[in-house]
Amino acid sequence: MSFKFFALLLAISAVHAETGYDAWLRYAPLSDAAARPYLTALPAAVTVYGSSPVVQNAQRELLRGVRGMLGRTLRVESKLPAESAILLGTAADLQAAIPQAGLRANLPADSYQVTTVAVNGASHLVIAGANDRAVLYGVFALLRKIGTGQRLNDHDPVQSPYAPVRWVNEWNNLDGAIERGYGGRSIFWDKNQARADLTRVADYGRMLASLGIQACSINNVNANPRALASDFIPQIVRIAEAFRPWGVRVALAVDFGSPKTIGGLDTFDPVDPKVATWWKDKIDELYRVVPDLAGIVLKADSEGRVGPSTYGRTHADAANVVARGLQPHGGLLFYRGFVYDHHMDWKNPKNDRGRAAYDNFQPLDGKFDANVIVQIKHGPIDFQVREPASPLFAALEKTNQGIELQITQEYFGQSRHNVFLVPMWKSALDFDLQAGGVTPVKALAAGKTFRRPVGGFVGVSNIGLDDNWFGNHLSQANLYGFGRLAWNPDLSAQQIIDEWTRLTFGNEPKTVETITAMELASWPVFEQYTGPLGLQTLTDIVGDHYGVAVEASERNGWGQWHNADEKGVGMDRTVATGTGYIGQYRPAVATMYESLETCPDDLLLFLHHVPYTYKLHSGKTVIQYIYDSHYEGADAVAGWVRDFQTLRGHIDDQRYSEILAQLRYQAAHVEVWRDAVNNWFHRASGIADAKGRVGNHPGRSEAEAMKLESYTVADITPWEAASGGKAVTCPVSKCTASMQFSGTPGWYTLRVQYFDLNNAVSRFKLWVGNQLVDEWAATDHLPARKLDASSSTRREVSGIALRPGDQIRIEGIPEGRELAALDYLEILPVRQ
Amino acid sequence: MSFKFFALLLAISAVHAETGYDAWLRYAPLSDAAARPYLTALPAAVTVYGSSPVVQNAQRELLRGVRGMLGRTLRVESKLPAESAILLGTAADLQAAIPQAGLRANLPADSYQVTTVAVNGASHLVIAGANDRAVLYGVFALLRKIGTGQRLNDHDPVQSPYAPVRWVNEWNNLDGAIERGYGGRSIFWDKNQARADLTRVADYGRMLASLGIQACSINNVNANPRALASDFIPQIVRIAEAFRPWGVRVALAVDFGSPKTIGGLDTFDPVDPKVATWWKDKIDELYRVVPDLAGIVLKADSEGRVGPSTYGRTHADAANVVARGLQPHGGLLFYRGFVYDHHMDWKNPKNDRGRAAYDNFQPLDGKFDANVIVQIKHGPIDFQVREPASPLFAALEKTNQGIELQITQEYFGQSRHNVFLVPMWKSALDFDLQAGGVTPVKALAAGKTFRRPVGGFVGVSNIGLDDNWFGNHLSQANLYGFGRLAWNPDLSAQQIIDEWTRLTFGNEPKTVETITAMELASWPVFEQYTGPLGLQTLTDIVGDHYGVAVEASERNGWGQWHNADEKGVGMDRTVATGTGYIGQYRPAVATMYESLETCPDDLLLFLHHVPYTYKLHSGKTVIQYIYDSHYEGADAVAGWVRDFQTLRGHIDDQRYSEILAQLRYQAAHVEVWRDAVNNWFHRASGIADAKGRVGNHPGRSEAEAMKLESYTVADITPWEAASGGKAVTCPVSKCTASMQFSGTPGWYTLRVQYFDLNNAVSRFKLWVGNQLVDEWAATDHLPARKLDASSSTRREVSGIALRPGDQIRIEGIPEGRELAALDYLEILPVRQ
Repeated sequence: MSFKFFALLLAISAVHAETGYDAWLRYAPLSDAAARPYLTALPAAVTVYGSSPVVQNAQRELLRGVRGMLGRTLRVESKLPAESAILLGTAADLQAAIPQAGLRANLPADSYQVTTVAVNGASHLVIAGANDRAVLYGVFALLRKIGTGQRLNDHDPVQSPYAPVRWVNEWNNLDGAIERGYGGRSIFWDKNQARADLTRVADYGRMLASLGIQACSINNVNANPRALASDFIPQIVRIAEAFRPWGVRVALAVDFGSPKTIGGLDTFDPVDPKVATWWKDKIDELYRVVPDLAGIVLKADSEGRVGPSTYGRTHADAANVVARGLQPHGGLLFYRGFVYDHHMDWKNPKNDRGRAAYDNFQPLDGKFDANVIVQIKHGPIDFQVREPASPLFAALEKTNQGIELQITQEYFGQSRHNVFLVPMWKSALDFDLQAGGVTPVKALAAGKTFRRPVGGFVGVSNIGLDDNWFGNHLSQANLYGFGRLAWNPDLSAQQIIDEWTRLTFGNEPKTVETITAMELASWPVFEQYTGPLGLQTLTDIVGDHYGVAVEASERNGWGQWHNADEKGVGMDRTVATGTGYIGQYRPAVATMYESLETCPDDLLLFLHHVPYTYKLHSGKTVIQYIYDSHYEGADAVAGWVRDFQTLRGHIDDQRYSEILAQLRYQAAHVEVWRDAVNNWFHRASGIADAKGRVGNHPGRSEAEAMKLESYTVADITPWEAASGGKAVTCPVSKCTASMQFSGTPGWYTLRVQYFDLNNAVSRFKLWVGNQLVDEWAATDHLPARKLDASSSTRREVSGIALRPGDQIRIEGIPEGRELAALDYLEILPVRQ
Repeated sequence: MSFKFFALLLAISAVHAETGYDAWLRYAPLSDAAARPYLTALPAAVTVYGSSPVVQNAQRELLRGVRGMLGRTLRVESKLPAESAILLGTAADLQAAIPQAGLRANLPADSYQVTTVAVNGASHLVIAGANDRAVLYGVFALLRKIGTGQRLNDHDPVQSPYAPVRWVNEWNNLDGAIERGYGGRSIFWDKNQARADLTRVADYGRMLASLGIQACSINNVNANPRALASDFIPQIVRIAEAFRPWGVRVALAVDFGSPKTIGGLDTFDPVDPKVATWWKDKIDELYRVVPDLAGIVLKADSEGRVGPSTYGRTHADAANVVARGLQPHGGLLFYRGFVYDHHMDWKNPKNDRGRAAYDNFQPLDGKFDANVIVQIKHGPIDFQVREPASPLFAALEKTNQGIELQITQEYFGQSRHNVFLVPMWKSALDFDLQAGGVTPVKALAAGKTFRRPVGGFVGVSNIGLDDNWFGNHLSQANLYGFGRLAWNPDLSAQQIIDEWTRLTFGNEPKTVETITAMELASWPVFEQYTGPLGLQTLTDIVGDHYGVAVEASERNGWGQWHNADEKGVGMDRTVATGTGYIGQYRPAVATMYESLETCPDDLLLFLHHVPYTYKLHSGKTVIQYIYDSHYEGADAVAGWVRDFQTLRGHIDDQRYSEILAQLRYQAAHVEVWRDAVNNWFHRASGIADAKGRVGNHPGRSEAEAMKLESYTVADITPWEAASGGKAVTCPVSKCTASMQFSGTPGWYTLRVQYFDLNNAVSRFKLWVGNQLVDEWAATDHLPARKLDASSSTRREVSGIALRPGDQIRIEGIPEGRELAALDYLEILPVRQ
C-alpha cells in the first residue's frame, strides 16, 4: 500500500508556530533520553490487517506519532514480516490472519488490547480492536503512553470503555454561528451549507477518535427544521464522509415540529400515524445516504421549542415516535431532560426550576423505547459552578439515561477565564445517589446500576474555527478531560490533567507541575469568586452569562437562584419549609441535604436559606465567607500570572504569550467580580467585612470624583458592575479626567479600569503632568455590548515615578457608540 | 514637553514576535536580579538641555531603553529638579545651564562623557556630548552597559572615537534593487523614487546612531547619473529628513560622467573649467536643500565606470574637481581606491590585479585636496576570505585615507552562511605595515600615523527590507561589529561579539557562550572550506560569487587567483620570481612575505606558488592541508547545528527556528564546497588523501548510476559542482531514480542531494519500496540560476528503517525550467 503523509513531515521541522491547532496530538519530539526506551522497545515494522479506511488511518496515525515523537518512520509491511512488527487490526481479522498467535477473536464493544505475541520466533506488538474504531483507540493509547513517558508493558489488560455511549454535541447553527461557542464560527456550516473545506471536520474527528468518542451531533439542539429537508441532506453526507475515517459517526438534532414545518403535514402530534410514518420515512431517507448515522438528538418543550405538550402528549410519546424510525437502523434517540418552564411565577417561593427535570421525567420511567436515552444535565439547573448531582439519575430505573456535561464554558468565563472542569464533573460523577448499593452518578448514567442496554456520556463541546478550537488554549483540557472521563470516569482529575499537560506542553517537570497545579485549582478558584457556598447564580443570567450582575437572576421566570435580601441568602429547597426539591433524592441523600447539620457548606445556599450571620462548619459566618472567598479567588488568579511567567522559554513563545495575556485579563476581571459581589452583599447585609477590605480600596480614585473635562457621570446598571456604581462617559470627541497625586514619592503601578465594548474602538492616553506615560486602544473582544461587568476591563502600566502634586490625567477619545468610559484609576506602589 | 512613545509601549508586552527587526536595540526586560543594581543606581527623572530633534531623540531613546530593560518610565522634567536626575545635553548647553556643576564646555569631536555631579545636594548622572549626535552616542552607551550587565561607574572617562570618519555605504540602485544585497530590496528607493514610507530609514538611522556612525551614502557606487538630476534631488531631501533626528547625515554616490550625461556639457574632463563650475553649482544646489550633506562617494575608472582616464587625467584631478565643490560646505569626497583593469592579459604571469590599487594611487600621494579621502579596501583584491592588508595604506603619507570594510557578505556565503567578519577585520586593522614606529592599518587609515586631518572607516552595509535587515539574523553582528570597530578598533572580537550577543539574545550564560563561540569560530571555519592557505578564490567569481567553481577565477581578465595546475598551486607575488606585489610593502613586511621561511601559512598561496607536496610549518603538505581543512570545516558547521539546538527555549522560537534552518542549510552546503574543492585538487594533483576520504563517500549512490526511468544524465559545469561530475534531469512530467539497498538492517538517514533553482518549484518524493517516506518541494531562495554548486542543496530525512533488498526510489516532478535534478543519494546509519 502507499499513502501520503506530507502534513506529518511538516511536523518534524525545527520549531513550527504553535497555534494550538494540534492540541494534545502534537507528537512533539521527545528528548533523546525520554525516547531511548521506546526506540529499544518498539519494532521497526508495522503491518495492518483489514482494508477499511479506519484501520488504514490507524496505521497512518501510528506512523505519524512515532515519526513525531521518536523521529523514526516505521516500515509499512503488507504481510507479517519475519522480523518483529507492530500488528494492527480488528481482533477478528488478526485472529484469522495469524491464528498461530492465539489471539482472542472477540473483544467487548469498542475495546482494544495491546499485547505481545511470538510468531515463528519473532515477537510482535499487537494492537487489536473489537471493531475498526477500537483499533484507532488502541493506537492512540499507545501513542499517549509514549507521549506521557509511561512504560510500555509486554501485556496490557483489555481496555474497555466504561459506558457504551460517548458522544459530543455541537450547538452549531446552519448559518455558521455557534450557540454558546467561544472558539470562532462553525467548522461544519457556513451560510446554510456544509463548508466547502471540511479539513477541520476530519481533524476534529481525529481529536474525538483519540478520546474514544464515537459520535458527534453536528447542529444546534435548538434545531433548524431545514436540517431534515431532502435538498439539505447531501450537506450532512459530506460531513459524515469527513468524519468517517476516524470512526466518528454523525448525529443530527431535529426540530419536533418538522413533520409540519417541512413535512407538509398538518400536525406533528406524535401519536398520529401520519406523523409516525413521516418520521420513519425521513429517517429511512437519511440512512440511505448516511448508513452509519448514529442517531438523533431532540430538545422539545423547553425554552421555546415545540414539543408533545402541544397535543397533550408525553415526552415518551415524542421520543418514541422518532426512536421507532431509528430502531431498524440501530440508531439512538437522545431526548433532552432539560425541560422547564421559563415563565414560572417567581413570586411563589415554592416554585423551583431545580425540580423540573425530575418532575417531568420520573413519572415516565419505563415508558421510553429501548433505543431512547434521556440526556440529563449533571445538575438540576444548568451547568452552574456548584450544583448537586441531579436526582433524576437515581429516579429512572427502567429508562436509558446519559449524563450531559458542558465542555464549552458558558457559565465559566467563556473563553476568557481559565477553568478546568474535570474536578467539577468528577464531583458529580462520583457522587453516590444511594439508589441501592454503591450507585455513583457515573454508574447510573452508564446504565450499570439498573443494567440498561445503553447509557453514557454526552459532552457539549462547541469548538470553532479559531486556531486553537476553543479561543483559549487551556480550554482544550476540558474536551480532553470529557473524553477521558467518558472512557473511564474512574480516572482522577490529577491523572487527566497530568496526561493532557504532558501531551500538550511536554514532559518537563516544571511545566507539568506549574500547569497541573493551576488547572486543578481553577474550578475551586472560579467558585470562590463567582459563586461560593452554592450561591446561584451571580452572573447576567438573562444576558450574556458572562459578567457579574447579582440580581439578574432574580425576579424573572427563568428560575430562582440565590434569593438574597437584607436578612439572608439561599434557596430553601428543603422538604420541611422549602420547595421540596430535596425530597427528589433517595432518602439517605435527602436526609443529609435536609439538615443544616449535615448539608455540606459548598451547597448550603443552593439548598437552604440562612441569615448572613449563619455560621458554617468552620465557624466562619456566611457573609464573611463570601467576602473572604472573593479576595482569595482574586489572589489566586494573580498568583497564576506570576507562576505562569516562570514558564517563559519552557513552552513555545506563541502559546506562552497568548495564555499569559488571557491570565492577565482574567486577573483583572476577577477583581470586577470580587468588588461587585462583595459590594452587593455588603450593601444587602449591612455587615462590614471583618478584615476591612470591602468598600475600601487604597489608591483608588473613582472617575466620577476626578476633575472632569467634557466627561459626564453615568449611572451603571447594575450598580455593582462599577466601582461606586458610576462611570464617566465622553459624549464629545475628547474628554479628560484628572486628579492630583498626594502620596509619597516612589515607583507606582497605575491601573485604569475602563469599559471595552465590541462595537467600536475608543482610545485612551495616560499622562503624568505633561508626560504621556501610556496609551492604548479598547480593542479586546469581550462578550460585551454595554457598560457593565462584562465590558469592564483594565489597563495597567507599571514603573511610573510619581511625586506629590503630580497631576495624573486620563484622556479618552471615543469612537461611535463606545464612549471611552472610565470606572476608576488605581495607584499602587510597585512591588519591589 | 510632551511626546508620544506608543512603539515603546508595544515593546513591553509579554513576548512579541521576535523578527529580528530591533536587532541589538531590543531592550528586552532584564531579570529582576539583573535589573536591581540599575534600579538602585539610576535617578528616576531626566532633564534634557537643548531643543534639537537629535537631543530630544536622545531623551526618547533613554526612556525607551529604561522602560524596556528595567520596566520604569523616567520622569521627564523640563528643568533641573531638586531630586537626582539624568541630565542630557551638549557639553556647551549643560555648562551654560548649570555652571555650578563645573562641567567641561568642550569635548573632542563626537565625544561624550557619562559622569556624576552634585548640584544643591542632589547627585545627577550627566550625559554630555561634544555635539548633538554625541549626546545620542552617550545615551546608547549607557543603555548598552545596562543591556550587557556592566557596572555603572560614578565617573567614566570621556569617550572619543578613534577616527573622525565613520560612514556606511549602501549600494542601492534607484529602482530598489541592491547590488550585493542579501536582505531584500532597498529601504530607500523604489521605482526610481524615495519610498513613500521611510520609517525604516529612520529605524536604520537609529541603528547607525547606536554605533556612532555619522553618515550613510544612499545609492550604489555604480551610480545612476539621475541621482544628481535637479528634479530628483527632492527625493534625497526626504531621506535626509528621515535620518536627521538620529544625527546621521546623507551622502551620495555620483557618476563621474554626470556633467555630460545630465549636465548638458560636451565633456566631463575634470580639468575643464566648465566641468569644475558644473560640479560646484550642482553641489551648491544640493546643499541648499540638504545643508548637512556629508559628502560624495566616487567610483571612477573601475569595472566599466567612466573616469579621468577618458581625458588622460589622474585620479587626483577627478577627486579634486568634485572635492572643490564640497569644500566650502565642509563636505568630504571619498574616492574609491578599487581601481583595476578587468581586461588584463591573464596569460602574462607578471600581471597582477593585486598591484592595481598601489600602482594607481601611490604615485599620486600628495596630489589630493584636503577634503578628499582615498577609500581603500582592506586587502589588495576584493574582500576575499584571506588577504594581506593592502600595501597602499602605508604608501600614502600625504593623502587622507579610509579603510573600506564590506559588511554585506558578498564572498562570505551571502545571507546563507554564518560568518562573523570582525576577527578578519581585526587581523587587517591590527596588522603593522611598519611604516615607521608602530603603524597598524587602523592608525594609518584613521590618519593618526601621518597626522592627516581626516580618515577613518567605511562599511559597505547593503541592508534591505527583510524583517531582520540582512536576510540572516546572525549577519547583524557584522554591522554591529563594524560600527564598534569604527568607534574603537582596539576592542577585541570577543568583546564585540559578547556585547552583541547579550544585546541581541540576552545575558543568559548558555546563550552567550554558545553563540559567541560559534561566531568567533565562523570566519576561520569559512576559510577552512572556501579558501585555506590564502587560496584565491574558489567561488564563481564571474557569476554569483556564491557557490564553488574552482576554475572560474582563472583564465579571464578579472585577475589571477589560485593559479593551480597539476604541479602546484598559488600566485607567485614575490619580487624575485613573481609579480613583484610583495615589493609594494615596506621593507620589513616585504622581507617577511618574500621568504617561504617567514611567510605565514595562511597567506602562503596568496603570495607564493608551491608544489602540492610543499610542507607547511606544521610539517603537513599543502595538498593534505587542503583536504583536511575542508573536512574540519564541514565538521565544525555540523557541530554548530548540534550546539545551537541546545538553545531551544533559551532564545525566542522565531529566531531560534530561522537560525537553525540557516545553519542546517549551511551544514549541507559546506559539504558541496568540501567535495568540490577536494575533488578538484585531487584530480589536479593526482595525490591521494592520506586519510582516504576524498573521492570515497560511504553510502553515496550517484544519481547517474541509479536505475533511471525517464531521468537523463547531464554533465554539470563545472564538473566539481556535482558528485561524479554529473547529475540527472527530468525532461518529462515525472521521472524516477532507484537503487537497491544492500546494507545491514537498521535505522538510516537518507540524504538526497538535488538542485534548487529560483525559476520554478520542482517536487520530489522519496520511497522505500511502496512506502512514501518523504516528500518536498524545491522552494528555497538560493542565488542560483543553473545546475551548479550554488543550486546544489540537500534534503535529509532521518530514522528510516532499511532492510537488505529494499528498493529506494526518488521521484522527481519538474516545473518549467527546473528539471528536478538530482546529484546523489546518501544513506548513513542514524547516530544513536
